[in-house]
Amino acid sequence: MIDKLIEKIQMTGAPIVVGLDPMMRFVPDSIKKTAFAEKGETLEGAAEAIWLYNKELIDKIYDLIPAVKPQIAMYEQFGIPGLAVFKRTVDYCKEKGLVVIGDIKRGDIGSTSAAYAAAHLGRVQVGGSLCTAFDEDFVTVNPYLGSDGVQPFIDVCREEKKGIFVLVKTSNPSSGEFQDRMVRTGDTTGNAGGITFSDKTLYEIVGMKVAEWGEQLMGQKGYSAVGAVVGATYPDQGKVLRKVMPHAFILVPGYGAQGASGKDLIHFFDENRLGAIVNSSRGIIAAYQSEKYSQFGAENFADASRQAVLDMIADIDQAFAGVGR
Amino acid sequence: MIDKLIEKIQMTGAPIVVGLDPMMRFVPDSIKKTAFAEKGETLEGAAEAIWLYNKELIDKIYDLIPAVKPQIAMYEQFGIPGLAVFKRTVDYCKEKGLVVIGDIKRGDIGSTSAAYAAAHLGRVQVGGSLCTAFDEDFVTVNPYLGSDGVQPFIDVCREEKKGIFVLVKTSNPSSGEFQDRMVRTGDTTGNAGGITFSDKTLYEIVGMKVAEWGEQLMGQKGYSAVGAVVGATYPDQGKVLRKVMPHAFILVPGYGAQGASGKDLIHFFDENRLGAIVNSSRGIIAAYQSEKYSQFGAENFADASRQAVLDMIADIDQAFAGVGR
Repeated sequence: MIDKLIEKIQMTGAPIVVGLDPMMRFVPDSIKKTAFAEKGETLEGAAEAIWLYNKELIDKIYDLIPAVKPQIAMYEQFGIPGLAVFKRTVDYCKEKGLVVIGDIKRGDIGSTSAAYAAAHLGRVQVGGSLCTAFDEDFVTVNPYLGSDGVQPFIDVCREEKKGIFVLVKTSNPSSGEFQDRMVRTGDTTGNAGGITFSDKTLYEIVGMKVAEWGEQLMGQKGYSAVGAVVGATYPDQGKVLRKVMPHAFILVPGYGAQGASGKDLIHFFDENRLGAIVNSSRGIIAAYQSEKYSQFGAENFADASRQAVLDMIADIDQAFAGVGR
Repeated sequence: MIDKLIEKIQMTGAPIVVGLDPMMRFVPDSIKKTAFAEKGETLEGAAEAIWLYNKELIDKIYDLIPAVKPQIAMYEQFGIPGLAVFKRTVDYCKEKGLVVIGDIKRGDIGSTSAAYAAAHLGRVQVGGSLCTAFDEDFVTVNPYLGSDGVQPFIDVCREEKKGIFVLVKTSNPSSGEFQDRMVRTGDTTGNAGGITFSDKTLYEIVGMKVAEWGEQLMGQKGYSAVGAVVGATYPDQGKVLRKVMPHAFILVPGYGAQGASGKDLIHFFDENRLGAIVNSSRGIIAAYQSEKYSQFGAENFADASRQAVLDMIADIDQAFAGVGR
């Protein structure tokens, strides 16, 4: 699947992924009106509104981009009807040829991680049948529980030819609270077998583990199916991590609404404009609500989103041009 | 809600929580047969089997225990029908007067954590209505993203009188991979304002944060609605963390099937047998499959579970007696 993602990035010339993180306040009133008229101001009504919004959006932008990243929390808050629309969105995007990264940030102990992996990337045995639950192509994984929480995802990825992105350095303001902590690492030195300590940050330690885990799932194009999440809001850390994890594809949130721009992204990529995929969520899906795209109006929200995708591609192209790539 | 949990623990004399983590292989064949006959070997069939199994179990043990902890992964793997049974289980347990701890281990950046908090502890606005999605009493939260990922849960807890348990030191074998790392902490010393470094483990650092977050939500009985998860499999770390977080109620997984026994638990509690609640999952719900309770047989699986609950209470009582509490 990592090879397919890379092919799609090369085909579209767009190392970007659109975050399908719908909030009710992004959905144009006309869509809400239709949905609520049919299903009421209920979880079902909210889910229907999100589905109509997603579908119009996907139809308008799918040809420009390699991948989408639905954030499951935004669907989970609408309960069972919301999660049914998450699944419907995953299926619809796959029908349209998009790679689907489920932003689920799951992670637990062994057998429980195995259940999450089965839920989102694999299959589950029911009597004599194998059934699929959500069936994304990639998911995001939280590493706090260590290798035995991550390995079950890797095992399912091997079997199903899928992939994961492990949280390493997240884009939010307080990500450094734990992730930036200086951690003691014991490196043995040559002289007399003594031990010196060369400190590393926790995110580097996690990054080193991602590199190690990734060796199990190398693709054909130089990258592993075990990738990493590193926020665009921390370009310096991105530069470090690009070297720590040379074969990890990096999913980069934080572009646009969270404050990062094209020039912050360069160090996440390799010499061939590969190695990273940049996410934008509200900057694309709610573009019509920003001043820059307000001329489109709510009724043409998806056209505004299309223009925002084109502008994002151009911004990244320009950043590449600036460093001669 | 933390006060209600404490009252229920005192009322039942049982500082235990039963993990409702159903795996298909725990479900007796007769139940599977009934469910598959009605709904096929499908996600719906699996979900129905789990529901029948859960209901019989809950009916048999609810009077002995203060709380249950359904593990959402075990339901999520059966997709939408599975999650509908998760919700049905939550509702049924609350009807029976049980406190429900949703073991969801969610955690994300600000607005996304807010959506998870709304999904599981709060309400969500749909037009002019407020709707509830899953509505547990407590949930477990992953701290890797730092304060701005946790605060939205705390905000919803304040509003809805609910609570969280933050992962601090998990029960799995590789939990130490990141959680036990020695982290540099700068404590200023008295002399000349110089800085010395007194190292702490990452789990202690997270524990200190839990204590700090907890100050916002102190209950009437000496404990905060911000609790912590610390594995019974690490009793020494539990001893340290009990002191680091004096007002955090500790949810303790790892008893029974994962290897810990009553005597490992003592240091998680305070002098009044409070301050902790011990989880057992398969040791209770699949008791009939163990040699100790095999005489019950699959048809009486719920009676075996009831006996296992009684034995667990006795084991913990004995451990308290051993230290004169």
